[in-house]
Amino acid sequence: MNRAEYPAPLRSLIAELKRLPGIGSRSAERIALWMVQSPDSHPESLARAIECVKREIQPCERCGFFSEANLCPLCLDTSRDPLLLCIVEQPTDILPLERSGAFRGFYHALGGKISPLDHVGPESLRIPALLQRLREHPPHEVILALGADVEGEATSHYLGDMLREFPLKVTRLAQGLPAGTGLEYADELTLSRALSGRTSLAAHP
Amino acid sequence: MNRAEYPAPLRSLIAELKRLPGIGSRSAERIALWMVQSPDSHPESLARAIECVKREIQPCERCGFFSEANLCPLCLDTSRDPLLLCIVEQPTDILPLERSGAFRGFYHALGGKISPLDHVGPESLRIPALLQRLREHPPHEVILALGADVEGEATSHYLGDMLREFPLKVTRLAQGLPAGTGLEYADELTLSRALSGRTSLAAHP
Repeated sequence: MNRAEYPAPLRSLIAELKRLPGIGSRSAERIALWMVQSPDSHPESLARAIECVKREIQPCERCGFFSEANLCPLCLDTSRDPLLLCIVEQPTDILPLERSGAFRGFYHALGGKISPLDHVGPESLRIPALLQRLREHPPHEVILALGADVEGEATSHYLGDMLREFPLKVTRLAQGLPAGTGLEYADELTLSRALSGRTSLAAHP
Repeated sequence: MNRAEYPAPLRSLIAELKRLPGIGSRSAERIALWMVQSPDSHPESLARAIECVKREIQPCERCGFFSEANLCPLCLDTSRDPLLLCIVEQPTDILPLERSGAFRGFYHALGGKISPLDHVGPESLRIPALLQRLREHPPHEVILALGADVEGEATSHYLGDMLREFPLKVTRLAQGLPAGTGLEYADELTLSRALSGRTSLAAHP
């Protein structure tokens, strides 16, 4: 007697779902069983949505954000400040900055960060496109909005050196206490950076 | 200036993913961004796997398990014991029982349990098909493998009454301590059922 198992198409679906980020074996099985038992057409419309995204979404030629056209709505937005350019690691970093409401310039996604251990050097990133942008439409300020991890720091230093030849201000995101947390939750490195980056109160210049 | 957001196909995909069981807003966004950035064809093969499952999987005519043909491999397995029939609520309950290795008969999935609050009465379940099976191929024993919740109990009682007219043994799953846990984790009802269902040790008959 054979060991009972799900039919082949269902096993394939479970295997495909298991490859999604954050989906383990049990979640994959639960989602697949939900799909096969779903009486409405939701699973099919999910399948169509996946195919539509893979067919119609491409990186914006200029900033690298997700776009349906060659240039994304962010790059085409003439109300933005062309003198401010914010450099991020990934296109996924752009919306969190937008949602903060604190930045109204343009973006440039590098597509990664320098990481020798992963064989990612500067040549793997969208740096030539960045240099071309800086020459064609020089901003007043470039903000390095890269991660506060080792690779993000290395990439910030590399870009800082590289941008010296341009007549522009180069800044980077502040490091310090995350909003809403107390000192007891901060690690030593965060506290050390919060101290060295301390700012004067407006009333005590 | 418009508030920046993802392009429409990406937003549709996030909305579809959010409807999956156990997937919240953040997971849906993370999976969608992973899909749009995935350089290989995995997202497309997931889409095809979903469509394949919805096209090719149907309930087995006899037991209700997921099947590619009219009858599933379980029902076609001639090495099984035709005198044992196990009644479960859902087709998803069949594989867990199979994996236990403790049952080698046939199955019948009701497709639900009696639940007046959800407007599920006996007429909504696969009971006529069960009666037909019992008449055509009468087993010696019917095992009620329904849940230990209120609706599962109600369904067991209903089926127990209904099956009185048949010359067969009707049993149900034991209730008691789950394997591998101590008494300190068991609730009062579980302990009460474990006590009333206590069994004699083999050496002390």
